[in-house]
Amino acid sequence: MVKEIFEHRSIRKYQSKAIPAEALDSILEAATRASNTGNMQVYSIIVTTDEKIKQELAPTHFNQPMVMQAPAILTFCADFNRFNKWCRQRNAQPGYDNFLSFFTAATDAVIAAQNAAIEAESLGLGICYLGTAIYNAGKIIEILNLPKGVVPITAITIGYPGEAPELTERLPIEAVVHFQKYSDYSKADIDRLYTEKEAHSDNRRFTAENNKDTLAQVFTDVRYPQSNNEYFSKVLLEVLKQQGFL
Amino acid sequence: MVKEIFEHRSIRKYQSKAIPAEALDSILEAATRASNTGNMQVYSIIVTTDEKIKQELAPTHFNQPMVMQAPAILTFCADFNRFNKWCRQRNAQPGYDNFLSFFTAATDAVIAAQNAAIEAESLGLGICYLGTAIYNAGKIIEILNLPKGVVPITAITIGYPGEAPELTERLPIEAVVHFQKYSDYSKADIDRLYTEKEAHSDNRRFTAENNKDTLAQVFTDVRYPQSNNEYFSKVLLEVLKQQGFL
Repeated sequence: MVKEIFEHRSIRKYQSKAIPAEALDSILEAATRASNTGNMQVYSIIVTTDEKIKQELAPTHFNQPMVMQAPAILTFCADFNRFNKWCRQRNAQPGYDNFLSFFTAATDAVIAAQNAAIEAESLGLGICYLGTAIYNAGKIIEILNLPKGVVPITAITIGYPGEAPELTERLPIEAVVHFQKYSDYSKADIDRLYTEKEAHSDNRRFTAENNKDTLAQVFTDVRYPQSNNEYFSKVLLEVLKQQGFL
Repeated sequence: MVKEIFEHRSIRKYQSKAIPAEALDSILEAATRASNTGNMQVYSIIVTTDEKIKQELAPTHFNQPMVMQAPAILTFCADFNRFNKWCRQRNAQPGYDNFLSFFTAATDAVIAAQNAAIEAESLGLGICYLGTAIYNAGKIIEILNLPKGVVPITAITIGYPGEAPELTERLPIEAVVHFQKYSDYSKADIDRLYTEKEAHSDNRRFTAENNKDTLAQVFTDVRYPQSNNEYFSKVLLEVLKQQGFL
C-alpha cells in the first residue's frame, strides 16, 4: 500500500520555505521513470521558481493565490519538438503532426506528472494540480517560449504545506467501477450513488453560498458552465492547430 | 521516496495466479483517491477478467499476448455520462459536450490510472500500459458497451509478474527538464542528449534487427509511421464526435 496515495490532499497554501535541490532532483527523476509510449519520452517539464515568471503565469491560472505562494510550478507539456529534431538529424522522417501523436504525448505527460506529485508528497511536500494549464495553453506557450510541437497539458504547484485540509469526499467506489462491461446507470442508481456527496456538509454549504437549489447547479451554472467550456474548447483546438497537431 | 516509482518495469509476462479481491479493492480505491477536476470524478474504470471478453478485447490491443495472459485488464475511460445524468436529475443543464470537457476527463482518467498502477506494484503485482486503448477506442466502445459521453483513454494489464526485466533506459533528466522557460535544443544538444540511448545494446540490436541505419528510423518507419498516425487520428476524431465531444 502506497500511503501517499491514500493520504493525498490538494494543498493550496504553502510555507515560504524553498524546495531543497535534492528533493526537486528526486521529483524530476520520479517523473522520468514513468511509463510512456514506446519509450519516446515525448514530454517536457518546465520548472518555474522565478518570481517574475510566476507573476506572468498567475493570470493563466486565473490568479489562484497558490501559484504565487508555491515556491515552484511544474508545467508538464506534450513535446514532439525534441523527438522530431532527433529524427531529422538521424535521417528519419517524423510523422507526428497529428491528433493521435498529440494525444499519446499528452497522456505520457500526465503519467509523468502524477509520478512527480506522489514523489513530492513522499518527501513531505504538498501539491495541487492546475487544470487551468490547458484552458490558457496559448498564453502559457508565449510566456514559457514553447516552440511548435509543444503544448502545456497540466501543471502542479509544489511546496511545504501551509495547511492540513481534511481528506476530500469521493463517490463510493461502485459509482466509478464496472465489472466486465459498462452497466449504465438507472435513475435510482444515480440517486443512491450521489446521496452521500449531496449530504456532505461542505457541499451543502457550497450550494447555499451559491444560491443554488442543487449541488449539480453549482457545477453547471457557476464552476463549469457551457459557455466557458465552449469558448475554451475553441481556443484549445486553435492552439493544437498552431502547435502543429491538427 | 516512493520505491515503486523508481523500480517500475512494464511487465508483459504474467503468472496464471488470480489477483486477490483485497488487492483489487485497494487498487481501485487508490485510483479514486486521485486528484481530479473539481472533484467531478468524470471517469470510469472497467475491470475485465472474463476470458471471453478479454478475447474480444485482444485484437483492439493488436493481440499483444499479455492481454490474454494477465488476469485483469483495467480500462480507464473519460466519462461524462454519469455526471450528465446526475445533472439532469437535479434540474441542472450540463454543458459538457465539447472538446475541453473531453480533455479534462481524459486527464483525470490518466491520473487515476497511474495511482492504480503504483498501488498494484506496491502489492507485488506487475502492470503494463496499453496505449492501444485510444487507437481502437471505437471497437472498445462496442465491446464494453460504453454509452455516449464515455471514451476509453488508456488501459493497464495487471497480474503477478512472470518475468523480471531490467530497468528501461531513459534520456538524461536534463533532456526533458527546462528551468524557468523552455530553451530549445541545438543540433549539438540533440547529439549529446541521445548519445547514451543510441549506444544502448538493446537499441543497437533493435536497429539492426529492423534493418535500419538509425534508431530514429525504427520509430518513424516501423513502430509509429506517419500513415498509421494519420489513420488513427482520423478514427479517433470520429469517435469523439460519435461520443458527443466534438
